[in-house]
Amino acid sequence: MAILIHNCTALLMDGAGTVLENAFVAVDGAKIVSVGTGRPAGPFDQEIDGRGGVLMPGLVNCHTHVPMTLLRGYGDGHDLQDWLNNYIFPKEDRLDARAVRAGAALGLAEMIASGTTTIADMYYFCDGIAQECVAAGVNLNLARGTTVFTSGFDFETYPACVELRELTDRWHGYNGGQVLVDASIHGEYTSGPALWESVAAYAREKGLGMHVHVSETRSEQAACLERWGKTPIQVLDQYGVWDVRAIAAHCVWTTPEDWALMARKGISAIHNPASNLKLGSGVAPVPAMQKAGVNVALGTDGVSSNNSHDMFEAVKLAAILHNGVQHDPLAVLAPDAVRMATVNGAKALGRKSGQIAPGYDADLILVDFSRVNLIPCHDVYSNLAYAAHGSDVTMNMARGRVIYKDGDFLTIDIERVRREVAGYAVPLLFGAQQ
Amino acid sequence: MAILIHNCTALLMDGAGTVLENAFVAVDGAKIVSVGTGRPAGPFDQEIDGRGGVLMPGLVNCHTHVPMTLLRGYGDGHDLQDWLNNYIFPKEDRLDARAVRAGAALGLAEMIASGTTTIADMYYFCDGIAQECVAAGVNLNLARGTTVFTSGFDFETYPACVELRELTDRWHGYNGGQVLVDASIHGEYTSGPALWESVAAYAREKGLGMHVHVSETRSEQAACLERWGKTPIQVLDQYGVWDVRAIAAHCVWTTPEDWALMARKGISAIHNPASNLKLGSGVAPVPAMQKAGVNVALGTDGVSSNNSHDMFEAVKLAAILHNGVQHDPLAVLAPDAVRMATVNGAKALGRKSGQIAPGYDADLILVDFSRVNLIPCHDVYSNLAYAAHGSDVTMNMARGRVIYKDGDFLTIDIERVRREVAGYAVPLLFGAQQ
Repeated sequence: MAILIHNCTALLMDGAGTVLENAFVAVDGAKIVSVGTGRPAGPFDQEIDGRGGVLMPGLVNCHTHVPMTLLRGYGDGHDLQDWLNNYIFPKEDRLDARAVRAGAALGLAEMIASGTTTIADMYYFCDGIAQECVAAGVNLNLARGTTVFTSGFDFETYPACVELRELTDRWHGYNGGQVLVDASIHGEYTSGPALWESVAAYAREKGLGMHVHVSETRSEQAACLERWGKTPIQVLDQYGVWDVRAIAAHCVWTTPEDWALMARKGISAIHNPASNLKLGSGVAPVPAMQKAGVNVALGTDGVSSNNSHDMFEAVKLAAILHNGVQHDPLAVLAPDAVRMATVNGAKALGRKSGQIAPGYDADLILVDFSRVNLIPCHDVYSNLAYAAHGSDVTMNMARGRVIYKDGDFLTIDIERVRREVAGYAVPLLFGAQQ
Repeated sequence: MAILIHNCTALLMDGAGTVLENAFVAVDGAKIVSVGTGRPAGPFDQEIDGRGGVLMPGLVNCHTHVPMTLLRGYGDGHDLQDWLNNYIFPKEDRLDARAVRAGAALGLAEMIASGTTTIADMYYFCDGIAQECVAAGVNLNLARGTTVFTSGFDFETYPACVELRELTDRWHGYNGGQVLVDASIHGEYTSGPALWESVAAYAREKGLGMHVHVSETRSEQAACLERWGKTPIQVLDQYGVWDVRAIAAHCVWTTPEDWALMARKGISAIHNPASNLKLGSGVAPVPAMQKAGVNVALGTDGVSSNNSHDMFEAVKLAAILHNGVQHDPLAVLAPDAVRMATVNGAKALGRKSGQIAPGYDADLILVDFSRVNLIPCHDVYSNLAYAAHGSDVTMNMARGRVIYKDGDFLTIDIERVRREVAGYAVPLLFGAQQ
C-alpha cells in the first residue's frame, strides 16, 4: 500500500533538527520511501492532507504493563506496599487470558489515540498482549517479566523461562519485526544470579534485548547495596545481563558509577516521570544521565501508577520536571524531551524508527496545530513539548498502516473492547458489585 | 433561563466528598437551584443529557496573564533573565489594546474548552481583558499589576493607580459579580512601601481583593531578605497588604513563619506547578502549607511559561509532584488536588462557586467518562486527578450559560479570533516575517 502525506510541516528528528515546511512524505508498505518538498511520483493508493498539521515520528512508550489498564485508579491513595499487597496483587491473581486481552486492547486504544506507535511491555499472559498489538497494528517489544522466589531454579523447566522460549519462537521478528521479544528480569530484588545468568545467556544466543526494572525506589536500592555491596546495575552486569541491547526502567536511584557503566554498555534508561512522582519513588537524574552519555527514553509505566497512557504528558513532564527540581530552566529543553519520546525510544528498543527518513519504519503521527492550544506557533518543538496533548493527534500510522484517524479507531473494534472490559474483565476482577 | 442537567454522576465537592449517581441538577439564571436524584419540577428551557458524564464545578484558574497567550513558546530555552529581558519584555512593549484582546480571547477559548469557568488575571490593558471575559461568559477577578521603579510615587496621579480606580468604578461587581476587581501589587521586588500602603488602603476602602506575586524565585527571596530582613509575605504584611481577601501567586520559597501568617490572615497560596517547574523556580511546599492551614489553589500562570492553560494538567501536577519530591505517595491525594482547582479556588477568589449546591453559581462542567482514557472508573476523583485531560470536557457552563458544548464555542467567534491573532496581533509583535 503506497500512501502520500502531503502539505504538512514535517519534524524529521534528524541530527540537524530539521522542520520541513510544505513536506511530502511517501510511504510504501511498512517503510518511508521519500521525504521532500516536491510531490513525488505516484501512484498512491491513499493521500492524506496534512495541512495545518505537524507530521512527526510516532511516540515510543518504552515501559508499560498494558493489561494493568484494567486497574486504572484502583487503590490510589494508599502507601506503596499496602497498594501492591492489598490492592494490585490480589486483583492480578484473578486475571485470565481473556481479561488480559481486554485490558491490553483498552490500553492500546488510549495509546493509539494519543500518538503512540510502539511500546515495550513487561507482563505475563504475553501471547494475548502480542495478539492484541498485532491486531491493533502497534509495534511491540514483548517481555515476560520473570521472578524467582524459590531455590533450585532450572532454566530448562522453570515455567516463566519455558514461556520465554516459546514466546521467542512464536513472536520474535513477527511481521517483519513488528513484534520483538525482549528477555526480561523483573528486577534484582525479585530474583537471583541463577536466573540472571541463564536469561542473559539465552538473550545473547537468540539476539534478544533485555528489559529490567532498575533502582525504582530508595528501599530497593538500599536492600541491593546491603545484599551485594553493589547497585542493581552493577550486580546485574556481573552476570552478563547488559551484554545485549537493554532497557533499564526507572533508574531513579542510579549513581554516577551506574551512568558510566550504562553509557559504556549502551543500556538505555527509561524515564517514567508520572509513575515515579505519583508513587513517591523520586525524580530520576535525567540531565546527569544524559550528560554521562546514557540514552534516555520515556515510558508511562502501567496506568495503575500514572494513571494515563498519554506520552505527550510524559514528554511535558520530562521537559519541565528536571528544570524545577534542579532550579535550572535549561536542564532539559523542548527538543531533548521530544527526542526522548522518538529517536531515543526507537534506539532503546532496537528499531529503525523515531525519524522521518527513507528506509525508516513508517511510524508517523499528525498533530493538529490549528487547535487553540497550539496557537500561535513560534517553535514547533516548544508547542509539542509543552502545549500539545495526546488529544491533538488526528492520525496515527504504524508500519505504513493508518490505525487511527480523526477520532476513529481503524484496527480496534472499540465497542467490543468496551463490552469485554465492562462485561467480562471488570466483573472477573471486582465481582458483580462493580 | 432554566436548565436541567440530568442523569449524570455529580461530584458535589461538598464537605462529605459526595459523588451523586443519577443526579439531576437544575439551574435558574446564574445559580444552581436544586440538586438531587429525582427529576425536579420544570419547566426548563433546555435539558442537557449527562449520561456517561461526570458533572463537576468548573475549574478555577487563580493565576494567569491571559493576553500572554500570544507569546506561547516564544523564547523558550533561554535563561530566565535572558528570556524576560530579551524576549518577553520587548514583545510586551509592542502590545496594543487590540492585540491584547486577541490574545485574551485565544487564551479564553483554550481555557473554556478545557473546563475553566473562572480566572484571576493580572496584566495591563485590563479593559480589553474584562470585555473579552464578559463576552465569553467567563468569571474574572481582574487585576492591574502595579509596579513602581521611580521615587515620588503619588497614588492620586500614578497612572497604574488611576487605572485601578477607573477599573474598580467600571468593573467591580459587574453583571452580578461576574467581574470582580482585585487590587494588585505586582511583587515586593517591583515596588515599595508607598505603593503598598496606598493600594492596600484603597482595597480595604472598596472591599477589593488583593493579587500579588510572592516568593517565586530563590533570588527574589534572597534579595527581599537582604533589603528588609523579612520575607515578602512578612514585609507586605507590615503595610496592610493582607488585610483583605488575598491571593499570593507561587509561594515557592515561603517559610514556616509565612505559612502561619498566611493561615491566620486567610491569604490563599496559588500553586502554579507547570510554570514553576519549567522556569526552574522550584517546587512550592504545598503539603506543608496545607498542613499549616493555608488555603492552596491552582493556576496555570501565563502560557509563555507553561505553555498550556489546561487546568487538568495543573491538577495532575499538583497531585503527583509533591509525592515525588517528598518520597511520600500520600503527600497529596486525588481529592486534595481536585479541591484545589474547585472549592479552594472559589474561596481564594471570594466567589460562591466551586461546589454543586443550591445557591451556588452555576459554574459547571461535564467530563466525558466514556472516553477510553477514563475507563474503567474505580474512583471518580482518581480518574479526574490523574487520567482526565481538558479535552475530555464536553460542556462548559458559566453562571448558568452554556459557553461550550461538544467542541463548539458558543460565546466566542473562534474564526474571528484566529484571524485577529494571525492577521493582527502576531504581525504587530513579530513583524511581517512571522
